[in-house]
Amino acid sequence: MADVVVVGAGLSGLVCARRLDEAGLDVLVLEARDRVGGRTLNEPIGAGRVVEMGGQWVGPNHAEILRVAAEVGVDTFPTHIAGQHLFAHAGRTSRYRGHIPSRIPLGVLDFRIAQARLERMARDIDLVDPASTPLARRLDTLTAETWMRRHMHTQSGRRLMRLSIKAVLATEPSELSFLHWLFYIATGGGLDSLIRTDGGYQQDRFVGGSQAIALRLADDLGDRVRLSSPVRRIEHRSDGVRVHSDAACFDAAAVVVAVPPHLLTMIEFEPALPAACNQLSHRMPPGMVTKFVAVYPEPFWRAGGLSGHATMTDGPISMTFDNSPPDGSPGALVAFALGDDARALERLSAEGRQEAVLDRLVELFGPRAADSVQFLERCWGREQWTRGCYAGFFGPGGWTSFGGTLRRPDGRLFWASAETAVHAHGSMDGAVSAGERAAQEALAAVGVVPPVVR
Amino acid sequence: MADVVVVGAGLSGLVCARRLDEAGLDVLVLEARDRVGGRTLNEPIGAGRVVEMGGQWVGPNHAEILRVAAEVGVDTFPTHIAGQHLFAHAGRTSRYRGHIPSRIPLGVLDFRIAQARLERMARDIDLVDPASTPLARRLDTLTAETWMRRHMHTQSGRRLMRLSIKAVLATEPSELSFLHWLFYIATGGGLDSLIRTDGGYQQDRFVGGSQAIALRLADDLGDRVRLSSPVRRIEHRSDGVRVHSDAACFDAAAVVVAVPPHLLTMIEFEPALPAACNQLSHRMPPGMVTKFVAVYPEPFWRAGGLSGHATMTDGPISMTFDNSPPDGSPGALVAFALGDDARALERLSAEGRQEAVLDRLVELFGPRAADSVQFLERCWGREQWTRGCYAGFFGPGGWTSFGGTLRRPDGRLFWASAETAVHAHGSMDGAVSAGERAAQEALAAVGVVPPVVR
Repeated sequence: MADVVVVGAGLSGLVCARRLDEAGLDVLVLEARDRVGGRTLNEPIGAGRVVEMGGQWVGPNHAEILRVAAEVGVDTFPTHIAGQHLFAHAGRTSRYRGHIPSRIPLGVLDFRIAQARLERMARDIDLVDPASTPLARRLDTLTAETWMRRHMHTQSGRRLMRLSIKAVLATEPSELSFLHWLFYIATGGGLDSLIRTDGGYQQDRFVGGSQAIALRLADDLGDRVRLSSPVRRIEHRSDGVRVHSDAACFDAAAVVVAVPPHLLTMIEFEPALPAACNQLSHRMPPGMVTKFVAVYPEPFWRAGGLSGHATMTDGPISMTFDNSPPDGSPGALVAFALGDDARALERLSAEGRQEAVLDRLVELFGPRAADSVQFLERCWGREQWTRGCYAGFFGPGGWTSFGGTLRRPDGRLFWASAETAVHAHGSMDGAVSAGERAAQEALAAVGVVPPVVR
Repeated sequence: MADVVVVGAGLSGLVCARRLDEAGLDVLVLEARDRVGGRTLNEPIGAGRVVEMGGQWVGPNHAEILRVAAEVGVDTFPTHIAGQHLFAHAGRTSRYRGHIPSRIPLGVLDFRIAQARLERMARDIDLVDPASTPLARRLDTLTAETWMRRHMHTQSGRRLMRLSIKAVLATEPSELSFLHWLFYIATGGGLDSLIRTDGGYQQDRFVGGSQAIALRLADDLGDRVRLSSPVRRIEHRSDGVRVHSDAACFDAAAVVVAVPPHLLTMIEFEPALPAACNQLSHRMPPGMVTKFVAVYPEPFWRAGGLSGHATMTDGPISMTFDNSPPDGSPGALVAFALGDDARALERLSAEGRQEAVLDRLVELFGPRAADSVQFLERCWGREQWTRGCYAGFFGPGGWTSFGGTLRRPDGRLFWASAETAVHAHGSMDGAVSAGERAAQEALAAVGVVPPVVR
């Protein structure tokens, strides 16, 4: 008999369990996979170095994940961004500095005007309850694509905005509620914050890879984390819960379900969840991204004055970054295929994908890009226990109909995951704040006076 | 060792199993619930009579379900529609005859012009592969609501169209891809066919209730249907499958998964499904409808010249029908709460919902409507193993990104359910044709020469 069972050993669940443990509770974490970390994942690239195949960056406003990283002794280092960036558009690649390529001045102007308009609208978004935003209902009836077609005036400007949406959310603007796009701009502290490296979401990385945080959190919890234990069924009553995994079942006073809403569907609840909660779980689908990492003996692009960062308005990849370890050895480029591009690549073989990505890297960074010594890919849509990244998003109608259900406790059931965060929704930072919020709720429910919120 | 395991004992799965059995195969049907019939469900209303709480109507073009019903000896009878209908709009209720209320001539004109336009566009829809329709990509970037706001000119016309969309799909126009709306008009044989009683989808009912078909199909299959056996996990290899339910696991040459795409998420697949299939399962959410049935000693409205059919542009219910048994004894009115209205009613208690619905029925049919002798409700969104009705729908981007995955077999895995149908998608008729199509595919896969398609 545990006090609280936590379902899911991603960042949100592990942080939640840590706080419950600190408060003196008996806690048990059940994880479906044979590893912890959820949507963070390190892969070895030789000589003890790793590269991140999942969530990896952290921005200066991400105080929650930075605090937890410091707690477990994981340092950050700046993303390598020095040098000129590349912008590939309409069949031509050019170099630029700063945040937005300047080659298409009219397009950039169109983009900047739209950005100002979006950020003005985003200031009105109620982050806690976006559905209560003035005009929310109206804003939630259209897709981001519809808004762009109506309010942007150049094809190149729209392509820049489409690229931003894909880069930020791993969705196509055509599948995204315009209200969700505004919410995302608000939760991220502005569009610049979302897309920038210096001063933005991509500013820093974690030494030893982002998964190191989850690995250390799990180490501290020891055998209270059970791997390869998918939860199939949760019975919940007013006085407690019974959580069934394949091998065993566990009684507890409460359960924190620390998986994204779309994975709630993998668990049977007895009694069934309310209709709003059932339906929410089908209304916040995950994005679609495949991350590719090409490893080289050294980051050869740096010598050529390039930062390794490229953005492209055509597929099959939309952006690259220098993803080398802190000392630049070995060199690594990470490339993102997003939305439709990622789906199209899934129709190729692994070899076909590698060829398509390396060909593009050669076009961008020259012939040496062909000579990768290691090539990694991770399509999160293929993963049984993730089914898509970066995070869940709402299509039209989602926020107004289901937003209020996102983190509403139901008796002895509490909800974590980055999708339930208010600030930095969908990020590692959001995962942490959501886990801590759920821990507070569970503590109150089992009668422990919650410690002061850090 | 069965030849084929069928997951789900709804109409689609049971018909599939029947065809496999007829072809001489060993078949086993695993059903999560303690009953068969899926989204069809009879409830007793005394004296051996029943009323349908799920899918209930059948139109003249629904040859597949009519053929199966005849096979198992279930007759049809005409929906009672004689008399004047009621139309409640803008606080006033009026009587009308025919298919569309005439009280708001400009609104009706607006609606009819939009309908003609929709039906013209629907003629271009490729039913087998809607994504290949000319302009599909564009049509799939907008919501039905966006189209209405752009192409309809009166508020009352838009309210009529909104009502039609809600009545046909149990969704709000704001959450629906415009392409899906066009597809639905096409798959249903036109908007009139979808919304009409005489000559349309609501023309007839089944004697003994629609679930009688599933019950008889299951009777014929006997102990080859296992109830209360939720499937948790399916291992699939090139030479066969292993299907795990709670109590036992079953080996077979193939499996037909006869549940809607959104319920695929409740099953773990080993190896995991392709990304497109994983993601599809999160992209076709079910609609939201609660059916209420008020039972009376007799259908008192008939004596007053009323048909029992009412349509309303305000909530909490959007339409009613006379739902009495063939001989009109007892009397029964069925009322539908749809989309947002159904969600709003979920915030009330069962008593609150009953009061709200009966109050509305009194406004429509007079004080005798208050004296129901039995009151039934079924919110399909609350059901663990359904999670929403009538059927799965696509929001923007769904068809173009995931339509091609809907019924594509994957090795030894085959897909049924009304959502995989080409004609009469989402209906009982579609469930039957999908089950028979999946049976043919499975037969071919296990090496049996498929019998001639009926």
